[in-house]
Amino acid sequence: MKEEKGASLMGAKRLWLEEEIQDDLRWLYSVKSILHAEVSDFQDVELLETGPFGKVLLLDGKLQSAEADERVYHECLVHPALLHHPNPKKVFICGGGEGSTAREVLKHKSVEKVVMVDIDKVVCDFCEKHLEDNADTFKDARLELIIDDAKAQLENQRDGEFDVIIGDLADPVFGGPCYQLYTREFYENIVKAKLAPGGVFVTQSGPAGVLAHTEVFTPINRTLASVFPRVVPYLQHIPSFADCWGWNMAFKDGSEQAPLEAAQLDKRIEARVAEGSGALAFMDGLAWVGITSLNKIVRKSLEGEKHVLTIDSPKFIHGQGVKQVGF
Amino acid sequence: MKEEKGASLMGAKRLWLEEEIQDDLRWLYSVKSILHAEVSDFQDVELLETGPFGKVLLLDGKLQSAEADERVYHECLVHPALLHHPNPKKVFICGGGEGSTAREVLKHKSVEKVVMVDIDKVVCDFCEKHLEDNADTFKDARLELIIDDAKAQLENQRDGEFDVIIGDLADPVFGGPCYQLYTREFYENIVKAKLAPGGVFVTQSGPAGVLAHTEVFTPINRTLASVFPRVVPYLQHIPSFADCWGWNMAFKDGSEQAPLEAAQLDKRIEARVAEGSGALAFMDGLAWVGITSLNKIVRKSLEGEKHVLTIDSPKFIHGQGVKQVGF
Amino acid sequence: MKEEKGASLMGAKRLWLEEEIQDDLRWLYSVKSILHAEVSDFQDVELLETGPFGKVLLLDGKLQSAEADERVYHECLVHPALLHHPNPKKVFICGGGEGSTAREVLKHKSVEKVVMVDIDKVVCDFCEKHLEDNADTFKDARLELIIDDAKAQLENQRDGEFDVIIGDLADPVFGGPCYQLYTREFYENIVKAKLAPGGVFVTQSGPAGVLAHTEVFTPINRTLASVFPRVVPYLQHIPSFADCWGWNMAFKDGSEQAPLEAAQLDKRIEARVAEGSGALAFMDGLAWVGITSLNKIVRKSLEGEKHVLTIDSPKFIHGQGVKQVGF
Amino acid sequence: MKEEKGASLMGAKRLWLEEEIQDDLRWLYSVKSILHAEVSDFQDVELLETGPFGKVLLLDGKLQSAEADERVYHECLVHPALLHHPNPKKVFICGGGEGSTAREVLKHKSVEKVVMVDIDKVVCDFCEKHLEDNADTFKDARLELIIDDAKAQLENQRDGEFDVIIGDLADPVFGGPCYQLYTREFYENIVKAKLAPGGVFVTQSGPAGVLAHTEVFTPINRTLASVFPRVVPYLQHIPSFADCWGWNMAFKDGSEQAPLEAAQLDKRIEARVAEGSGALAFMDGLAWVGITSLNKIVRKSLEGEKHVLTIDSPKFIHGQGVKQVGF
Repeated sequence: MKEEKGASLMGAKRLWLEEEIQDDLRWLYSVKSILHAEVSDFQDVELLETGPFGKVLLLDGKLQSAEADERVYHECLVHPALLHHPNPKKVFICGGGEGSTAREVLKHKSVEKVVMVDIDKVVCDFCEKHLEDNADTFKDARLELIIDDAKAQLENQRDGEFDVIIGDLADPVFGGPCYQLYTREFYENIVKAKLAPGGVFVTQSGPAGVLAHTEVFTPINRTLASVFPRVVPYLQHIPSFADCWGWNMAFKDGSEQAPLEAAQLDKRIEARVAEGSGALAFMDGLAWVGITSLNKIVRKSLEGEKHVLTIDSPKFIHGQGVKQVGF
Repeated sequence: MKEEKGASLMGAKRLWLEEEIQDDLRWLYSVKSILHAEVSDFQDVELLETGPFGKVLLLDGKLQSAEADERVYHECLVHPALLHHPNPKKVFICGGGEGSTAREVLKHKSVEKVVMVDIDKVVCDFCEKHLEDNADTFKDARLELIIDDAKAQLENQRDGEFDVIIGDLADPVFGGPCYQLYTREFYENIVKAKLAPGGVFVTQSGPAGVLAHTEVFTPINRTLASVFPRVVPYLQHIPSFADCWGWNMAFKDGSEQAPLEAAQLDKRIEARVAEGSGALAFMDGLAWVGITSLNKIVRKSLEGEKHVLTIDSPKFIHGQGVKQVGF
Repeated sequence: MKEEKGASLMGAKRLWLEEEIQDDLRWLYSVKSILHAEVSDFQDVELLETGPFGKVLLLDGKLQSAEADERVYHECLVHPALLHHPNPKKVFICGGGEGSTAREVLKHKSVEKVVMVDIDKVVCDFCEKHLEDNADTFKDARLELIIDDAKAQLENQRDGEFDVIIGDLADPVFGGPCYQLYTREFYENIVKAKLAPGGVFVTQSGPAGVLAHTEVFTPINRTLASVFPRVVPYLQHIPSFADCWGWNMAFKDGSEQAPLEAAQLDKRIEARVAEGSGALAFMDGLAWVGITSLNKIVRKSLEGEKHVLTIDSPKFIHGQGVKQVGF
Repeated sequence: MKEEKGASLMGAKRLWLEEEIQDDLRWLYSVKSILHAEVSDFQDVELLETGPFGKVLLLDGKLQSAEADERVYHECLVHPALLHHPNPKKVFICGGGEGSTAREVLKHKSVEKVVMVDIDKVVCDFCEKHLEDNADTFKDARLELIIDDAKAQLENQRDGEFDVIIGDLADPVFGGPCYQLYTREFYENIVKAKLAPGGVFVTQSGPAGVLAHTEVFTPINRTLASVFPRVVPYLQHIPSFADCWGWNMAFKDGSEQAPLEAAQLDKRIEARVAEGSGALAFMDGLAWVGITSLNKIVRKSLEGEKHVLTIDSPKFIHGQGVKQVGF
């Protein structure tokens, strides 16, 4: 993201943005300027210049994405799923209005079509206009952007249509509409049906540090495992989120070889990603080994998790500091 | 101050400006937008839109003046001194770059000339441009604005030149240049000399609540009392300063009748202030009685105060949340 | 309050207690130690050692009373009403479990009986035990402490029983039980009925600074004025409350002479208060003139106030940083 | 750590402890009670009960260790070094007064002697008394605790004395004494000399997230690599430190096989650690693979790092939220 105009505070430590990570834990970062602010039918949309994280995108005052580390988040969300698919051509993104997820998907030379469904046109227009790194993404001829409810749109697609489906949605928070997209019903009846043979689904899965990983990360894993023959959980620390973050990747038809070994992943990056490994800041074979080699605490929780999320037995998270683009 | 353009946060309670009132006491108010920001040779100058206090002017991140209550502060600073003088024509303002002090002075029909000396041209230009209520003040033909050190400029004036001298300066903080303007030397050698017969001097005198009034309010009173035959201390709560504020008014030749009774003050307001009492929001005879009728705690401290401030025995304040325009 | 034992943090600026004055304004003060903490059926009761205000009593985390300035609050609440009554013998306190209100009442030599009704036995016991300044108060033979609902108890008293009734209750906050005790119905049907001829009622009336005084201070004044022939409003800055505070004093049968002049008040203090003026830290004749001589902004609001508070048209305050002892 | 007595706040979100992670980034966690507090010649020592992290040990107000995740930190610090040594008998700990490092070391059945040198007797006594999990550690006959400067004590040991040396010291902060223990001189002249053949040195190395890892983590790695033939860097997220943390493990005589593969590490844990893998909460073979498989961003920084820390060219860190036990 490029430097933009706006009245800017020179002095650090004057203005603070406060995130409530939990009701007993807060994260405060200094703000230098308010670059842009709009209001949509769904949420307030803001771009701020901060001290520790550079430009940050806020929805309803919550950090969604920070210049300093959004590549780490989005590379983890996107590349493992596409690299584990033998030849991904059609990709569906639930949410993703910020554009960064599509940006990473479009780095894959095999991709012919990306359908991205976000409910908030204001967010999409705002990010197209103000996030310079994503400007080309919105102009890419392979991208079809639909402003609508992601679940409804996915439901209307032909069965077996997509090689990869990506869940870039808000966490399941109480009272929010997203919780349905983290249920066995959604995974079984919609996601699995719309995946082509060999298809891969990946979803962001909330905080995954040694203290918070049982909130939704392990239940989502368990839920996917009740639907898909193989699920790979992984996690990585994202500084601006003040915690590790988790993802779960599920294979429609199983995958003996998942997770890929380091050398294989590196080879696929070179072959498939435009500009090869130079295009990726964080992810490569060794990083992949690192984020999938889970520690004992998290593995034990995954093994012990019994909660399959359904419409009638959902689970909610405190809901701060999480992705909320589109639903 | 009129609404101005700028990216604005809709949601309350996201961005907080933190003032350190004391090292163990903080005042946080929400900020909606950063309207304007500049940097001078002396300080950062900022105008913010806040939740509780409307637009606020900050110097180096410290609140100087707030749309919500600056009239209370400036009416208390200016009108008592001018109303206690029989016929004020020439007024000198030490500091005051914000323009609000001059604005109140110029409401007095008798005033023919105001010399305002502020060290920071950027502050003066900034306030002339951005504080709509003060725009006319800077254009008033009776105002002479000099960008310089107030002490040096006052020293160079002819003796007996001014009917009223107003100290609208930063508090005496350690390491700051202003402490000299709160000393017996300054009052004796410069202020008293430059006052015409019957002249009145008034100075802001720092926080004056029941807990903080001995920091500088009572020492300034004692110091003035060592130079002038009659000194009237008074105080009023200013919400955005998070405390009561104090002023001391000194008479070159004594004044049997000071402080004026309510009815007398009201009469003078009607006779002398353009548009009469309608021009003043806070001050009138009864308000004047209220702010000069000090409680037992403060009176006892005033009586017991021994500290005469001199160049060699100054006293400093924590220095947050105080007036810092010009010196 | 005397120093008490407890693990204490030596370093300032580590632990902060946060009060939400308004939803866009916060007050943070450093805490050195947690001296005592209990839980009642109604609220959490805590005594903390703070940096700026010494020991403070908290109910549900909100500051009720601070060692540094509670005398200012309680002298303003109690002495004007008793001093304006010709010969107060019987006093009823609604709330007041902290004991400080009764402590001030009992300084009046004429007082023969004080009935204090607070709903929370834990608060009363806690304060008797831990607030050293109030220990003797709870042992005073003239004090009858009843643990119950103040409204119900007052209703059950004989008509014309009390010379002075004091409302030392929580502010009217939404969802709280206290709002009924700030209505025309309560004042008309209960308070006025229980006052003896010549009786005086006084109630704390919420924040009263130039910005906040219309929240409940002026409506309470208007409501009392619809019931009593004469009402005297007054206000004083209380540092630990981060604002001026207001009170309204009402006379059952009118009072030509209220408010008393300074000299009269001083005379009555000497004659009636045990140990005379030495017993009072803040209040005397001149202080009384100061706090009753209201400024133009507040007077204008009082004159323009139309809202009579009734059970069907109450008004609520944000409800932080206010007295909540007993209801 | 077991529940201890002390006045405790029931309500969450009242008292906040504020850590300055960077000057533009703060971490606030709620505090329920102050369990114990002492003052030593070197620092304030405090044990608090917090909302998100359970009991936490603070030195000079900075979090050193939290009940919720201290095992993660200390298992990462201790076990890799001991498990990579063929048969560790003698271990030296620089700092470590909290006792947790020694506790982990003493789980190794091969260990015959642990010399722990911490400068602050008060910290050691405090932790022995108040950290229940470490009480037995301080009584273990194999532990020799010396209160002194760690560098001076290590220097006085016989050359080749120790199989493993552990640096559990404060980060190199400006003005602090510890920076000398992060220099080439210390590693070359003292640490390497005191290691027995085949000896292993490990040191905590500051924050190591994708944003902060170049502060001291990569310079320490580069410095060790200028002295030792093989150095293994690794990192793990520690929630209470609000970042990933880094360690560097160095081999006196090189080690073809470091880092060990998962199966080998698991085998050694079973064979050498008392109670086997059951004794460890976080660490095992797969966790070890995860924390040593560094991502591209960190690897690139390690490769590009040129700064060898010496007495004349040290590097400092902001110094908050870091280990400061002993120096």
